[in-house]
Amino acid sequence: MHGTSTSHPFDRATAVEMQADGTAIAHTGPEYYGFVGQFGGATAATLLRAVLAHPDLLGEPVAQTVNFAAAVEKGPYRIEARPARTNRSTQHWQVAAFQGDDPMPRITATTVTGIRRAGWSHQSAEPPVLRDPSALAAHDTGGGSGWTSRYRFHFDSGAPEIAAPGFGEAAPAAAAEPAPAASTLWLGDAPERPIDHLSVAALADAFFARVFHIRRALVPLGTVTMSTWFHAGAAELAGLGTTLLAARVDGRRSNDSYSDQSAELWSPDGRLVATSHQLVYYKA
Amino acid sequence: MHGTSTSHPFDRATAVEMQADGTAIAHTGPEYYGFVGQFGGATAATLLRAVLAHPDLLGEPVAQTVNFAAAVEKGPYRIEARPARTNRSTQHWQVAAFQGDDPMPRITATTVTGIRRAGWSHQSAEPPVLRDPSALAAHDTGGGSGWTSRYRFHFDSGAPEIAAPGFGEAAPAAAAEPAPAASTLWLGDAPERPIDHLSVAALADAFFARVFHIRRALVPLGTVTMSTWFHAGAAELAGLGTTLLAARVDGRRSNDSYSDQSAELWSPDGRLVATSHQLVYYKA
Repeated sequence: MHGTSTSHPFDRATAVEMQADGTAIAHTGPEYYGFVGQFGGATAATLLRAVLAHPDLLGEPVAQTVNFAAAVEKGPYRIEARPARTNRSTQHWQVAAFQGDDPMPRITATTVTGIRRAGWSHQSAEPPVLRDPSALAAHDTGGGSGWTSRYRFHFDSGAPEIAAPGFGEAAPAAAAEPAPAASTLWLGDAPERPIDHLSVAALADAFFARVFHIRRALVPLGTVTMSTWFHAGAAELAGLGTTLLAARVDGRRSNDSYSDQSAELWSPDGRLVATSHQLVYYKA
Repeated sequence: MHGTSTSHPFDRATAVEMQADGTAIAHTGPEYYGFVGQFGGATAATLLRAVLAHPDLLGEPVAQTVNFAAAVEKGPYRIEARPARTNRSTQHWQVAAFQGDDPMPRITATTVTGIRRAGWSHQSAEPPVLRDPSALAAHDTGGGSGWTSRYRFHFDSGAPEIAAPGFGEAAPAAAAEPAPAASTLWLGDAPERPIDHLSVAALADAFFARVFHIRRALVPLGTVTMSTWFHAGAAELAGLGTTLLAARVDGRRSNDSYSDQSAELWSPDGRLVATSHQLVYYKA
């Protein structure tokens, strides 16, 4: 098993067994299930781990796009990651994940890895200003077995106010007036885990869908595509330890079945760690 | 040739000849060259056209990620677009472009197409407030043969102030203090052309790199990956005619060779047409 640690549920859920032909076998982790199949962030991280464990790897993660074509269901699945082209500084990967005897990929992805050459650098963006996480209540994830219990959320603004139906009850009507799409929060693994590109790839998906926020109600939806840009290199991430990250999340337009979400993840000292953008398909 | 029109240089540059096996042959257009190879936006649009011309297409463009692994040089190139998985409402495409006898793809891409089902819709984002384009000078693109001459730019804020060297002169030193990364502008094809998903895929790349803005100098760079979300359906785009679009562009962090850019394209009446995010590799 190629994992940084087998003691944390995240590392168990995203572990890969590299095969002689460069493909990888992974197993969905029961702690990272979602409404339908595995939490997309865990899938994204597992695909990234298959790239990072590949013998032909050049550099470290720069960007990843993951397309969720079908649910990854309980059990093993196969990841095919191959370097399509390797340049002097960058490497382009084509990735797909298959399950069982289904001939069609359930996930398609591309990944860019690269060598970060130290040089002129500049951050134009301003970090969000959040209250100290100790002053903010921990969001109640219900303590259940779903993936949300694998994360710590401390909302500073835009906490979800979702009127979820009790078991056997009809879903309440959506709020008449659309609520704001934006949230700011502190976010981290539960339990704590050292931050690396793998956890960032998953953290980038660890938000409540903007449609839930806007409508204040649950509606059927699923992420169809997610792209994450890794602005911090491995050494910078290692220096962060197990800290909570500050996050700014927003949505711009929900239109005829497709709704977008943009997220920024920041270090406590104000460095932009990653940005991520996704589109969900919804029925409402 | 599968093109909406052969009279506009954009349609000539992005035309594809569909082959019996579903692949497509394209030819770089001399009017859309960049510093190194073809303008990435023209390449993105051509790949999208190969998807839209495919006999198995479901729906219309929802999202596209294009990875620029190597330059597309003058001449013909081959596009392999295949539907990896087709669901009831969405279809996931894997795309690659090859040139000459080079066995490695120069471009890899994924595309999501889908059926937009009319239903609950809501725009959370606010459009930029720009002065009328008639009150803003047209940006001087030099009238040359480069791709910038194929676009009309009317900057409302953040016009590029790039101290380009004359022929044979040394490049001037970069500005000592980083300048802002953000721009707002009106943007459109030159000459006018009806807006569709193909032109939007290219317009999303028709900005000057944020590194040029921040440093007020040209440095060697190239886009490595670009993702575009199409928030407007085909019918909404058709209703826009040939209007200029309002654009808001920004960059967040340039760090050790990689710099990001985010862009929004808006209709004049305040609807978000598309968002796009890209990462460039730079030497500085």
